[in-house]
Amino acid sequence: MHRRKEIVGGTSPGPVVGVFDSGFGGLTVLKALLRRMPGARFVFLGDTARLPYGSKSRRTIARYAAESARFLVNEQGAEFLVIACNTASALALDAIQDAVPIPVLGVIEPGAAAAASASKTRDVLVIATEATVASHAYAAACRARGLRVVEKACPLLVPLVEEGWIEHPVTAEVARIYLSEVLEEAEAARQSPDTLVLGCTHYPLLRGLLEREILELTAPAGARVIDSAEATAEAAARLVAQVANYGAGLGTEPSAPGTPSIRCFATDSVEKFERLGSRFLGLPVGKVELVDLGG
Amino acid sequence: MHRRKEIVGGTSPGPVVGVFDSGFGGLTVLKALLRRMPGARFVFLGDTARLPYGSKSRRTIARYAAESARFLVNEQGAEFLVIACNTASALALDAIQDAVPIPVLGVIEPGAAAAASASKTRDVLVIATEATVASHAYAAACRARGLRVVEKACPLLVPLVEEGWIEHPVTAEVARIYLSEVLEEAEAARQSPDTLVLGCTHYPLLRGLLEREILELTAPAGARVIDSAEATAEAAARLVAQVANYGAGLGTEPSAPGTPSIRCFATDSVEKFERLGSRFLGLPVGKVELVDLGG
Repeated sequence: MHRRKEIVGGTSPGPVVGVFDSGFGGLTVLKALLRRMPGARFVFLGDTARLPYGSKSRRTIARYAAESARFLVNEQGAEFLVIACNTASALALDAIQDAVPIPVLGVIEPGAAAAASASKTRDVLVIATEATVASHAYAAACRARGLRVVEKACPLLVPLVEEGWIEHPVTAEVARIYLSEVLEEAEAARQSPDTLVLGCTHYPLLRGLLEREILELTAPAGARVIDSAEATAEAAARLVAQVANYGAGLGTEPSAPGTPSIRCFATDSVEKFERLGSRFLGLPVGKVELVDLGG
Repeated sequence: MHRRKEIVGGTSPGPVVGVFDSGFGGLTVLKALLRRMPGARFVFLGDTARLPYGSKSRRTIARYAAESARFLVNEQGAEFLVIACNTASALALDAIQDAVPIPVLGVIEPGAAAAASASKTRDVLVIATEATVASHAYAAACRARGLRVVEKACPLLVPLVEEGWIEHPVTAEVARIYLSEVLEEAEAARQSPDTLVLGCTHYPLLRGLLEREILELTAPAGARVIDSAEATAEAAARLVAQVANYGAGLGTEPSAPGTPSIRCFATDSVEKFERLGSRFLGLPVGKVELVDLGG
């Protein structure tokens, strides 16, 4: 187990938690982490020069993600790493764990665990990017928990969120089309899903809209919407509390309200990150620092 | 001026033309090139591991594009280079010209020249990716020809094309929203546009739909739709004919119908390239070879 070297004792600042995403969608995970670990110091890296991972191959994603993880650990001193990117979690968690000597947590297992807790029918739907769906990582994690699952790639939802069309008739129509298709597929497989997993960090911004559309399509039963970001933040807080005596220190030195300890890095266009990032974090992201990973 | 070294004379095969895009949208340019230069040998590179360029910074795009150009020239023997990517043409043409010692043609100048020929009112609209619009490369090229111009980023059109929603009510609605906005902006600037430039290589697949929507919004006047891919292919054929005695050889040894000489490379996921590429080329793209540019 990795141990902290420099900082010990009750008066030390909180743990350094690295949070990695291909873009800034992972800021929805960071937002959830902030609520649960106010005393931690967060270092966020968005590999924006090489995004989106969602349409790329496993080999390429693994290489990019491992480089990014090494930056957070070797250059920023991260002691825990949260892979706040469904695609990287689905396709590259092993590669990242091999690349760095600290505990690494992805979003797939916590999301599947939350779905297993929520579902009464034991049938769930997962919506995600093309690459996440093609990996069937959610399907495997859900099946391991006795769930049946239908997965659906929804490649238009990310660009719609980035265009800022959050409460927009076009987005509602696109969501209706995707959800109708996945519900039809579930019906054809004689499944009765009661739970919808948001398997992409952009989707929590559409949570209200997706909840309305799935309710309309499945009324009166409806479906419980599971946000992997929330589930992951909970699992991360538990993990940090279990490891290296952080339990007692966690939350004892909370950041002052509105001034969490966050440092953000991006591999490209810090302007876009600063502009869009605040929408995902629900707070101003502040100054974003440019880093060159050589891609 | 660059000269051919190995191949001379009337019986030689045609020139080697490198065609570069960040993805496979540039295959619409290759499609137009094939019609005009049936005797040429085409080497196409899609830098799919790092796409899309459209949302990235100038510095990053220049680095990626220069590496790609060097591959086509140094490893594939390209004698002419067509940058079949609006974003790379807009932001990195100089960097590419500095990187390789052969004639390089982008899509912006030919597109602007075609708009200048088509427009009677001297007012034109340009739709393109975020990065192309932010560069104002089309605006500068149009203004240099005495045109007034309003540009509009349409970031949802590329993912809609890649989702295959070509003739789809959602795509029609999105196009109507974007075109209404750009027309309103032109009206506010007291301009009377009669020409719409498709400043992205994905957009020719939506040409029919865009023509209908712009006609509906501007009836009865309508607007002429300019496809930069067609304009660029024409300019490329002229350039090749002017340089190094290719004039006489061009078209004298046409490929047999259906068997053009094309070799395709991609930096990622050849499956996706093969699947989607044929839609853009209008022909099967055949076997796509994976290449690692180290990104």
